[in-house]
Amino acid sequence: MHTPIYFDYNATTPIDPRVLEGMLPYLQNHFGNPSSTYSIGYRTKEAIEMARKDIANLISVEDGNVFFTSGGSEANSTILKGIAAKSSKKKHIITSSIEHPAILKTCDYLRKHHGFQITTIPVNPAGIVDVNDIERAITSQTVLVTVMMVNNEIGSIQPIKEIGNLCKKHNIHFHCDAVQAVGKIPVNLKELPIDSLSMSAHKIYGPKGVGCLYLREGVNIPPLILGGSQEFGMRSGTENVAGIVGFGIAAKIVQEDLYFNLTKIEYLRNLFLTNLHTEIEECLINGDIHASVPSTINIQISGIRGESLASMLNELGFCVSIASACSSTSSKLSHVLKAIGKTDEEIRSSIRISIGALTTEDEINQLVRHLKQSVMRLRSFSPKYQMSI
Amino acid sequence: MHTPIYFDYNATTPIDPRVLEGMLPYLQNHFGNPSSTYSIGYRTKEAIEMARKDIANLISVEDGNVFFTSGGSEANSTILKGIAAKSSKKKHIITSSIEHPAILKTCDYLRKHHGFQITTIPVNPAGIVDVNDIERAITSQTVLVTVMMVNNEIGSIQPIKEIGNLCKKHNIHFHCDAVQAVGKIPVNLKELPIDSLSMSAHKIYGPKGVGCLYLREGVNIPPLILGGSQEFGMRSGTENVAGIVGFGIAAKIVQEDLYFNLTKIEYLRNLFLTNLHTEIEECLINGDIHASVPSTINIQISGIRGESLASMLNELGFCVSIASACSSTSSKLSHVLKAIGKTDEEIRSSIRISIGALTTEDEINQLVRHLKQSVMRLRSFSPKYQMSI
Repeated sequence: MHTPIYFDYNATTPIDPRVLEGMLPYLQNHFGNPSSTYSIGYRTKEAIEMARKDIANLISVEDGNVFFTSGGSEANSTILKGIAAKSSKKKHIITSSIEHPAILKTCDYLRKHHGFQITTIPVNPAGIVDVNDIERAITSQTVLVTVMMVNNEIGSIQPIKEIGNLCKKHNIHFHCDAVQAVGKIPVNLKELPIDSLSMSAHKIYGPKGVGCLYLREGVNIPPLILGGSQEFGMRSGTENVAGIVGFGIAAKIVQEDLYFNLTKIEYLRNLFLTNLHTEIEECLINGDIHASVPSTINIQISGIRGESLASMLNELGFCVSIASACSSTSSKLSHVLKAIGKTDEEIRSSIRISIGALTTEDEINQLVRHLKQSVMRLRSFSPKYQMSI
Repeated sequence: MHTPIYFDYNATTPIDPRVLEGMLPYLQNHFGNPSSTYSIGYRTKEAIEMARKDIANLISVEDGNVFFTSGGSEANSTILKGIAAKSSKKKHIITSSIEHPAILKTCDYLRKHHGFQITTIPVNPAGIVDVNDIERAITSQTVLVTVMMVNNEIGSIQPIKEIGNLCKKHNIHFHCDAVQAVGKIPVNLKELPIDSLSMSAHKIYGPKGVGCLYLREGVNIPPLILGGSQEFGMRSGTENVAGIVGFGIAAKIVQEDLYFNLTKIEYLRNLFLTNLHTEIEECLINGDIHASVPSTINIQISGIRGESLASMLNELGFCVSIASACSSTSSKLSHVLKAIGKTDEEIRSSIRISIGALTTEDEINQLVRHLKQSVMRLRSFSPKYQMSI
């Protein structure tokens, strides 16, 4: 089998070879427990602290406010359940309709089991929340606003600064799930009034199984996982040293390459769209490319099933997604595409293409060519297009 | 710097080269998200399921009852908080005084924040709980008994079968933290009435950052981490594929080597103790070697500080521990040694030596030699021993 041509960077990314190279010593000789007092323990402890600095740098915060977790979902569960546990009186949370399941399901859990009221703010057809809607939803009971920075399915970028300022004004904790933003757009917490933020390594060419939660100085929540008091007491469990080291290197690389990649990916996205519209009739973008990161392209192709198209492309050696990768084994229709007003039929005829640092112009050209052939083939079975032959 | 001679296998173990070899493809080409529907996603999904089988085999359970976590601490937090969340009426938990902080601190959290009453069963000087004490502690409110299989500091093996039968009789959930037992002694859940069990990969020559929770068929608890519904909905978050693959290989290897290692380590332990008692006066074993796994040796050496001895041995290239490695950066005295009746002074003069699959006879001989020299040197500063010169 050939190495497939990968167009699903939002689902996960390959590990950068420099990241793996940096991890290897910590999977071999440098295996000490960071809590140990002897030299091989110190060594892993130091490596963790170096990674913490690199990750803190990427989002312009102090390293002491970054806490390693097993990934973005754990970071999200930690902050949402943590804020809820601390709030005995105020029981209202505001979120958006296009959040990741790690946010939506945790909100739902807090609603069902801890008496929280959840307000889910709608988005416009571009997939953007209106800050005024959030302001109107705030009550004296609101303890938390949680809105993602970049959506995983359509790439829409939220007005985080405005939401943060609003929360600051009302003295409400503002959490931001930035798993799909970090490494794709500048995330500078000196300029963004965010109280807590979630990140994941495997979306930025780091390993799976590691992420972090940033907590603004002064934010106190109980840990989700208790025990040996690692991570300044915020997250117990022997540290995933190699994973953390890899995360640190990945953070450094995406920071260095941010503007180069952003420019390159925007060029490739435009190339793809131009070719797509030339080659394939009746294609529509879900969302608005002017309000989104260029790496995410969600398209609706009339007369085909996204499922069949993705499967046919897979046979041809291309990886594309039919929904959020984190839930594509479930058969539910995308809640994000629903939220931007798509009908079930439109959602079923959509696929997501996500571009990354390794994508080439040649890959884009190959994708469009095979997409065209596959769409023509699939449309040949469709009553609507058969009639027009 | 030379590779140190490692005597702290209870803190963490080096990764077996075969484990790393098996992990590498999943840190390189096989990077697909296991939730994806295309071939490179299937491939990682299959690898996870193979690992699940190997781990299930190690403890003789069905693979569908094994749920991957980021480690033993997460597994412990998941089950304790999960059982607590489901129990709106019964609010009593029974545990032992020598549990890992991941159990004790979570119990304490449930006591402080969720109105649970915690009964902590004492242990005898060998570090063993009395099943009758547990039976006497059971009330109509008892919802959970949690007792570890093997202690991390002194190696004592608990009467798990008896505790399990007792819990079964009273219809109480029995959780067992088996992090220090698996791979060291046979753990056969066909013969042990355990409702849930925690394991960790990095204690059995697998990578850090991965573990699992076994849940007996029919045990339903809410997940600790919510989101994309990975792990049959029991634990969300993109899977640590390489870590899980490594855990599976490690499980297979420790299962194959179990009796060989047990015999070898018992021989080395006996060699160490014979030489120790010949070479160094006034040494005492903390706990009882006849009630413990042979890999853990906790010794009290009169006239020295464990801290100074460990530090001196570190300079000489040996890794030993002064307390539970999971908390040795904290300055608190071992709660385990306290629980078996040691005075503060006795605890301060103790060190833990833990032996593993890679330990050799030569390493044991070197350790005793340097231990003797170090003890003599340290005792030369001690008023008691100075007088006797």
